[in-house]
Amino acid sequence: MTARSAVPVDLATAAELAAQLRVDSIRCSTSAGSGHPTSSMSAADLIAVLASRHLRYDWDDPRSATNDHLLFSKGHAAPLLYSVFKAVGVITDDELMTGFRRFGQRLQGHPTPVLPWVDVATGSLGQGLPDGVGIALAARYLDRLPFRVWVLCGDSETAEGSIWEALDKASHYQLSNLIAIVDVNGLGQRGRTELGWDMDTYARRVEAFGARAIVIDGHAVGAIDQALTAAEDTAGGQPTVILAKTVKGRGFSMVEDDPNWHGKAFPADMADMAIAELGGVRKLVLRGPRPMPSSIPATVTAPAPTAPTEWPTYTVGHSVATRKAYGDALVALGAQNHRVVALDAEVSNSTYTDEFAHAFPERYFEMFIAEQQLLAAATGLNVRGYIAFASTFSAFLTRSYDFIRMGAISGVDLRLVGSHAGVEIGADGPSQMGLEDIAMMRAVQGSIVLYPSDGASTVALVEAMAATPGISYLRTTRGAYPVLYPAGEAFPVGGSKVLRSTDADDVTLVGAGVTLHACLRAAELLAQDGVHARVIDCYSIKPIDRDTLAAAVAVTSGRLVVVEDHHPEGGLGSAVAAALLTDRGTGLSLAHLAVREMPGSGSAEELLAWAGLDADHITTAVRQLLQKV
Amino acid sequence: MTARSAVPVDLATAAELAAQLRVDSIRCSTSAGSGHPTSSMSAADLIAVLASRHLRYDWDDPRSATNDHLLFSKGHAAPLLYSVFKAVGVITDDELMTGFRRFGQRLQGHPTPVLPWVDVATGSLGQGLPDGVGIALAARYLDRLPFRVWVLCGDSETAEGSIWEALDKASHYQLSNLIAIVDVNGLGQRGRTELGWDMDTYARRVEAFGARAIVIDGHAVGAIDQALTAAEDTAGGQPTVILAKTVKGRGFSMVEDDPNWHGKAFPADMADMAIAELGGVRKLVLRGPRPMPSSIPATVTAPAPTAPTEWPTYTVGHSVATRKAYGDALVALGAQNHRVVALDAEVSNSTYTDEFAHAFPERYFEMFIAEQQLLAAATGLNVRGYIAFASTFSAFLTRSYDFIRMGAISGVDLRLVGSHAGVEIGADGPSQMGLEDIAMMRAVQGSIVLYPSDGASTVALVEAMAATPGISYLRTTRGAYPVLYPAGEAFPVGGSKVLRSTDADDVTLVGAGVTLHACLRAAELLAQDGVHARVIDCYSIKPIDRDTLAAAVAVTSGRLVVVEDHHPEGGLGSAVAAALLTDRGTGLSLAHLAVREMPGSGSAEELLAWAGLDADHITTAVRQLLQKV
Repeated sequence: MTARSAVPVDLATAAELAAQLRVDSIRCSTSAGSGHPTSSMSAADLIAVLASRHLRYDWDDPRSATNDHLLFSKGHAAPLLYSVFKAVGVITDDELMTGFRRFGQRLQGHPTPVLPWVDVATGSLGQGLPDGVGIALAARYLDRLPFRVWVLCGDSETAEGSIWEALDKASHYQLSNLIAIVDVNGLGQRGRTELGWDMDTYARRVEAFGARAIVIDGHAVGAIDQALTAAEDTAGGQPTVILAKTVKGRGFSMVEDDPNWHGKAFPADMADMAIAELGGVRKLVLRGPRPMPSSIPATVTAPAPTAPTEWPTYTVGHSVATRKAYGDALVALGAQNHRVVALDAEVSNSTYTDEFAHAFPERYFEMFIAEQQLLAAATGLNVRGYIAFASTFSAFLTRSYDFIRMGAISGVDLRLVGSHAGVEIGADGPSQMGLEDIAMMRAVQGSIVLYPSDGASTVALVEAMAATPGISYLRTTRGAYPVLYPAGEAFPVGGSKVLRSTDADDVTLVGAGVTLHACLRAAELLAQDGVHARVIDCYSIKPIDRDTLAAAVAVTSGRLVVVEDHHPEGGLGSAVAAALLTDRGTGLSLAHLAVREMPGSGSAEELLAWAGLDADHITTAVRQLLQKV
Repeated sequence: MTARSAVPVDLATAAELAAQLRVDSIRCSTSAGSGHPTSSMSAADLIAVLASRHLRYDWDDPRSATNDHLLFSKGHAAPLLYSVFKAVGVITDDELMTGFRRFGQRLQGHPTPVLPWVDVATGSLGQGLPDGVGIALAARYLDRLPFRVWVLCGDSETAEGSIWEALDKASHYQLSNLIAIVDVNGLGQRGRTELGWDMDTYARRVEAFGARAIVIDGHAVGAIDQALTAAEDTAGGQPTVILAKTVKGRGFSMVEDDPNWHGKAFPADMADMAIAELGGVRKLVLRGPRPMPSSIPATVTAPAPTAPTEWPTYTVGHSVATRKAYGDALVALGAQNHRVVALDAEVSNSTYTDEFAHAFPERYFEMFIAEQQLLAAATGLNVRGYIAFASTFSAFLTRSYDFIRMGAISGVDLRLVGSHAGVEIGADGPSQMGLEDIAMMRAVQGSIVLYPSDGASTVALVEAMAATPGISYLRTTRGAYPVLYPAGEAFPVGGSKVLRSTDADDVTLVGAGVTLHACLRAAELLAQDGVHARVIDCYSIKPIDRDTLAAAVAVTSGRLVVVEDHHPEGGLGSAVAAALLTDRGTGLSLAHLAVREMPGSGSAEELLAWAGLDADHITTAVRQLLQKV
């Protein structure tokens, strides 16, 4: 059968499809010389019945707003997913056989959105389901569309806490449009899983977290079909978890349930035997149901703003915390653009995201203390085209670093805001101090790292973040400091501001956030002694304004002081150094003031002085530089 | 009553103690002007009964091996913990009133091991219980001592997936010596928790994860005492979770169950009212039970090695993967020192930690796919004096960054090993490639970052890690590359190796790991054209060998090529730049070759070439530097 059927695919054909998916998973991985055929084979029946009879998807229009979503949280089952793509006719058998895991090809070892039918990159386990929660949130609360979100999970990945964060939020938000299918083959990479085939324990856990559990034989197409049909009944208001007891390597008796065949392609002779046992190569091309019709446009677009945006303004010289300015700006942004949404991990009254939550409660999602799910929900919301701002303490974004990293691979737009940066927070102590966040965020491929020093620049940068694709990070400060710039001043990403300069400056001072204020004070102190300091507000740490920095150090004979409320590695000083180092012209004479020891509690002033980041330490550093020949 | 009682404290006295703990929590936070009195008050009865009647602890010898352990996973209840310290007489009322949250004092905003009675730093929620799992693992499987691990948890933090990773592992390892006490006051920082006082759902979740759940009124001292007594019965082989329904701010009617009083000290007038309502200031000094006697020494010490260590050796020029050499070295280390233990997150057959698991199964702990618990277990094992090596893919260590950061605050020794670094891994694609790990690990306060290029240096560095306190990280490579050094060569932390040099070198090439081999090939190619390249193996990235680098660039007129299989931010290039930048003498002319775009699948060779990290790209970079004047 090669024709595309318009009538529903029957179960016998679905079983044939399952055999084809197994055969093709074997063929493509053997062809590539690596991959995960056995992990694909355990889930082949599940996915065959899903793809042929339940997944409502317009394969010719993967961006259609009413398509169901299909995520492979067990991303290593990529051969199975790609075999589905072949079976529905969107990739050729030739691409499957010559493209999988090859350099420059799109059928990568684990799925990424380089493929138009893939929403998010997976392969770091325990992320697909949390991402699916974000998509399902969008469907239920924002899109208000009847599509479903299907997520194939492995059993091993249920050891990840993020899976339980996801189910917790899915039940809290009554995401009956979310269906997880857990392929319980009982084997992990290195042997038996913790729970093996203890389906009762899986069911108890899932139900305790508020989901409906359906336990089935994952190789009985009839049972699978009944379970998927049951899952489509959303009346109960719960997410559904189908717990499918399966056998790894199912269909090839030589490897079934063998713990030694994880992540290994079969040699050619074994592949031939397997394909023979599975009944040979098939050429089914068939598609499942089409999406439900919907009245909304097939492509998600943002509505035009209904009124001129009233951005918050602050009086120069008055004190405002940048975290507060962020909250204010987010409300303005939300009024301007109805696709702006916000999330926070139980600290919205500290990050000031609560201003948005109060203004637009229908576009605010509380993630409670679950920073991994915070990132995953933002990811899923962005998959549906929403402009999601996710905030927590900058220190606690470290909890979600793997999700941020994977977000970059997914190519999603994530707007992250970390408050309470540095020792400046004071009495709460080091556990609450973000001191690694700039390093962490700079190292993310393609990221943007912003660190405003006052209210006006914060507002401008929040506006810029909304318009900027990719992963951007805004670092905010706990305390209130003087407004430096008038409202409306431009702060382009990649720019900087020279706040003090003469034609004959002696030294360049570079700060951002709280340290910029110390640089300004230091410059005043130095001026009393006739020392001229150029002061640069390096609000855009990545990309960084290389030209302005280079021009400054050229004037100041290479003398440069960089001051940051962050550990010395990977932060502002590192960014400035990287920008200037490729320039052979000027030997640099750099003093890098950063937090080099473990802080404790104290006041902001005490701790900034202890760390050597205050005006006195800056002036001392300048005098030492000036004494060098 | 001011005398220390040797007889068991009765329940009426325990209730009095609870009132004192509330009063003192209020007094110290009001005195400091910040802190979390209401979060302390909800748990005061629980902790009063625990500390006075159940916690077996020699307060004069906090390092005693047979002491119970008490962890405040809800670290913000520090006022309560410090009030206990006063009640047992190890700190004075004066310290409590003048030291809490003050600069330079040890009673920090959240507990840290600066205090001898604190095992681990808490304050990033959801970490104390996972850390406790590590301590309980040590007790049950290594120490074989009857002490118990008591962990006070908040209800809000049960939203963290790490709590469920912890309970999962606690039940898997039958840690009946672990007792979590969850203070279910129903309020988080910004309002009602997800589950409020839904004790049934908490109990179902806890039981589904294999723990015994005991639901009580957390303010009824009799019920608390019964629950703690029941928890001490370890016959069931399960961890116990006491779910205590409590009221935030309990004891001061004006704030009880008020969502607006999280993390706020009472003003002085309110504090006076609260103290009056609680019956005034008390001066109880009393202690609970002493530890069980034990036959083992009171201080954990390592046994002397029983035989000379046979370190693995490799023939120069033969190929071996550094991940394999790590596995080999760990086995040798395990034979040398019985306190060496290992953990892995379900990839031990990729990291080669499985060699240790096979050699010393009683000292290997499988954490399955739970990287947060992996780090927390290593933390807890180190609290008990074990030398724990924890391994997974370098990419997946990002999952546990918050735990690594907190480990630094805890001052524990963590030996982390991340395999499959960089694009070198090839076909599996970007989700499996560690490309941010050096930046992440360098930014940890006091950390050590090591990146060997061959088998001999790997063995030496594993040995060095075992002897090095603090947090150290070893980055290993997937593929096999030629052994460069003879067995027994010394590789001190902070050192480097000059593999090629003349007195008139034209350029310095710096590599580590896989890129060192490319540098060596490039140097050979350049030599054919009469260009002399000095090649440095920068195996110690933090601390870095500044002197050797500075001497090299002095010879090569500042010309320097740094090559790393990592993103450009925060990695080897950043470390080299930071080392050389403070030197005004030489203008640097740096070419920094790193992974600047998003990789896909391919072979190691294809991807290293694509990223510009192979010998051809290095020689091109050198020629460009030489053309500059």
